[in-house]
Amino acid sequence: MSLISVGTMAFDAIETPFGKINQIVGGSGTYVAYAASNFVKPVQQISIVGFDFPQEEMEELRKRGVHLDGVVVVPDKKSFFWSGRYHEDMNSRDTLITDLNVLADFDPHIPDSYQGAEFLMLGNLAPKIQLNVIQEMKKRPKLIAMDTMNFWMESAMNDLKIVLKYVDMLIINDAEARQLTGMFSLVKAARSILQMGPQYLIIKKGEHGALLFHGDEVFFAPALPLEDVFDPTGAGDTFAGGFMGHLAKSGDISFENMKRGIIVGSAMASFCVEKFGPTRLKEITAADITGRIQQFKELVSFEIELV
Amino acid sequence: MSLISVGTMAFDAIETPFGKINQIVGGSGTYVAYAASNFVKPVQQISIVGFDFPQEEMEELRKRGVHLDGVVVVPDKKSFFWSGRYHEDMNSRDTLITDLNVLADFDPHIPDSYQGAEFLMLGNLAPKIQLNVIQEMKKRPKLIAMDTMNFWMESAMNDLKIVLKYVDMLIINDAEARQLTGMFSLVKAARSILQMGPQYLIIKKGEHGALLFHGDEVFFAPALPLEDVFDPTGAGDTFAGGFMGHLAKSGDISFENMKRGIIVGSAMASFCVEKFGPTRLKEITAADITGRIQQFKELVSFEIELV
Repeated sequence: MSLISVGTMAFDAIETPFGKINQIVGGSGTYVAYAASNFVKPVQQISIVGFDFPQEEMEELRKRGVHLDGVVVVPDKKSFFWSGRYHEDMNSRDTLITDLNVLADFDPHIPDSYQGAEFLMLGNLAPKIQLNVIQEMKKRPKLIAMDTMNFWMESAMNDLKIVLKYVDMLIINDAEARQLTGMFSLVKAARSILQMGPQYLIIKKGEHGALLFHGDEVFFAPALPLEDVFDPTGAGDTFAGGFMGHLAKSGDISFENMKRGIIVGSAMASFCVEKFGPTRLKEITAADITGRIQQFKELVSFEIELV
Repeated sequence: MSLISVGTMAFDAIETPFGKINQIVGGSGTYVAYAASNFVKPVQQISIVGFDFPQEEMEELRKRGVHLDGVVVVPDKKSFFWSGRYHEDMNSRDTLITDLNVLADFDPHIPDSYQGAEFLMLGNLAPKIQLNVIQEMKKRPKLIAMDTMNFWMESAMNDLKIVLKYVDMLIINDAEARQLTGMFSLVKAARSILQMGPQYLIIKKGEHGALLFHGDEVFFAPALPLEDVFDPTGAGDTFAGGFMGHLAKSGDISFENMKRGIIVGSAMASFCVEKFGPTRLKEITAADITGRIQQFKELVSFEIELV
């Protein structure tokens, strides 16, 4: 099985209560690739970078089985740059700078070598771009998942509603689910979103875990209680990468297997937040991941007799 | 096994985005008794009420196996009254009125008929009062749990630190855990509290579930995702009542059984929030409770192979 990941590869500058870093690689596609490549090969990356994106980073990704045929390198422009500062509770952040640079011209296409992929993860991009990518696939993938954000709800809601009809799963956070539906109750918001097209919905709640909805079924996975969240940047994309990587590894899109995927995604996200950017994701081993998943089992497992 | 519950029995006036009620019975002891009496008999209540507290309410509690020998009725004063208004997110509320009335004279004693109880739940009261109750017990209970709040941290921190050395378990919410320790990370706060006396700690996170800490072990139970939280008043006390009721029923204070207790408490709290005050707690049957616990199992259960 293979997984196509469409998303940004970028530079970030990050400030948290624990420290500050002026330049580190980031972007949704980067996090998805680092997370998913632990489970499935190849991850077929679609993105755009400038002349300044480090060759070593490309090499690092290649070594992990990430294909880069779909990554356009623009020789005379800089990579996308985002800078942000987190508040003390780590649940909210201020965006300080957004320099689109190469991202302004991003017009992703599916390389021939990627055709036939069974899984497609559409990172947070303009809904029209997401739809174009779907329509370029000659054979419909087994599962198409997408992310989006408040910006597109405010500027391109009609396009967003169209692309939602073409995907199987939407992966968003709680604030986005509320904004998309105008409903405060996440259970009501979920029911409304499942009427918009996707059959599956994941609502990410950051340190409060994630919910999976499908029909009348619901599954919840907590976030691991950590001593400190050092840097939450990329945790949501890492979650999505772990989730999709697990599904693509097994080829199994049953609800039962999606539950496992949520646990795998939560485990990957719990590593991501331990250091700046994707640093920790590059260090961890298969044994680390297995150990972390075991911690999740212990965190929520209980035996109870129902009489 | 029997459970002594020390707490308020009162009147509340409640305003939520869904409606308003000018007078309904409330108080921590009331909620603990309604929740716990589903699992253990007798619940031995210690409280104080005024001339205005309804006889029918007393009768209702008696019918459920709640002993009232320890409930003082003051013939010439009114019952404790609290009035509050919830914000739209239901996680925060403004206290509008607090009329202590009889509560100003509350000096609880253990009736002889209650001596020998194996479980003791100390509701949120002045730490000195909590300590007095503990010291009146001729035989130390198998498990003593207590609640507290920010008011006592600000006005009686020394007393609070003393009583903490006499209890086995503290049950508080996330904001209180942070205030008690001055630590933002709940994992760090928990470690700090477990140095203060209690061997067990439950941190309640409202709609985001509850954490149980003991030594290096941690267990998490989510709150049930509900369409609407109609009225959160008493949910925390109901949780504590369900938890202690389950422990007292089985007499088992192992960590494994506490996990089950947390699930039972969460199930009871999920009923509590469905209607004003304790209304819903009076309606539910054993079958309702079993069904709700089954929902919790389904919400978090997953099977994953670790290789």
